[in-house]
Amino acid sequence: MPTEHTTVRRLPARARYDRATLDAILDEGLVCHVGFVTGGRPFVIPTTYGRVGDDLYLHGSPASRLLRTLSDGVDVCVTVTLLDGIVLARSAFHHSMNYRSAVLVGRATVVDDLEEKRAALDAFVEHVVPGRAADARPPNEKELRATLVLRLPIADASAKVRTGGPIDDDEDMALAVWAGELPLRTTPGPPVADAGVDVRVPAYVSGYRRGAKA
Amino acid sequence: MPTEHTTVRRLPARARYDRATLDAILDEGLVCHVGFVTGGRPFVIPTTYGRVGDDLYLHGSPASRLLRTLSDGVDVCVTVTLLDGIVLARSAFHHSMNYRSAVLVGRATVVDDLEEKRAALDAFVEHVVPGRAADARPPNEKELRATLVLRLPIADASAKVRTGGPIDDDEDMALAVWAGELPLRTTPGPPVADAGVDVRVPAYVSGYRRGAKA
Repeated sequence: MPTEHTTVRRLPARARYDRATLDAILDEGLVCHVGFVTGGRPFVIPTTYGRVGDDLYLHGSPASRLLRTLSDGVDVCVTVTLLDGIVLARSAFHHSMNYRSAVLVGRATVVDDLEEKRAALDAFVEHVVPGRAADARPPNEKELRATLVLRLPIADASAKVRTGGPIDDDEDMALAVWAGELPLRTTPGPPVADAGVDVRVPAYVSGYRRGAKA
Repeated sequence: MPTEHTTVRRLPARARYDRATLDAILDEGLVCHVGFVTGGRPFVIPTTYGRVGDDLYLHGSPASRLLRTLSDGVDVCVTVTLLDGIVLARSAFHHSMNYRSAVLVGRATVVDDLEEKRAALDAFVEHVVPGRAADARPPNEKELRATLVLRLPIADASAKVRTGGPIDDDEDMALAVWAGELPLRTTPGPPVADAGVDVRVPAYVSGYRRGAKA
């Protein structure tokens, strides 16, 4: 699946090219960082996304610079990064992070078909809050037409994963310095209802969790 | 501070250009996404960073494609995104995210001076775990020389912030759909000591928190 553009060169032992690893990262992430070139310069914009099978979908207002630029059919790089922990080594030099990241490159194309757009909009909502699309008022045709949806095939892609504790130099192992991993998680706080809501908090909100299901 | 490259065009009401807002985002983030162009194509790579006053520092192995490309003096875009919450609207269309993001553009330059490199390496460690640099074995000259450090002035930059609940259409306000915000935080799990460590977990690890100090 990777080409010369996505083959991991630095620390290749951390590279993963299987779709299961890639999909798990894409499905757990909430935000991707989209890179594109305009006027010869790079730009990186955070945005939400959704995955349907072998395609990643991006969306936004037709007025956004990101979406307008991408809809011209330019090359794009979409990166999703999950931070799993801080790795504290005995030496400053060997400090690191545990993470899982996915990098996709290719050309995004505009989705015109209203049914595909509808499925993509469902995917955006379900991606962030599974169970939500069935409750929220679905998009009407005017909203569908007002949303620019782009499709990027998950084809030229790679993932990178670091896990585990610090790797210190032998001569530092006896230092009286605490070393190890501090795991990090994205966790929800108590839901804040909008004014005027007199409906019970749904289970998919009160029981929301991201990441490891355990 | 913003130029034509960083002036926020989409939803300008969310734009912030003051250094205090920008620095707070940079200082809270753990990872940035660095965008650069190579062979005419965009790439976006996650990496850690540090801030010293008016400069952002990036680092890595001289073998990394990211660092090697950037050290040629190419244009770079560094984006830091903090996810603060999921915004659930009554309509699928108005679902959103609360976030704070910072976008810096410019040309990174290689830091050769060993003292500036040393200060930058301290900043990388202190940025991720405040208090750590005084405990870990400091970098020696060999390690300093083996680390490629790049400096990007915080000059052409902007931030974007969304807070608050959903903004639904008037005709949806009476729908019996729960709406509101689900706040998200980055929280640490229990520290995992490396094999052989018989030093107490330091307070800056056991009491680690990121984001709002409250």
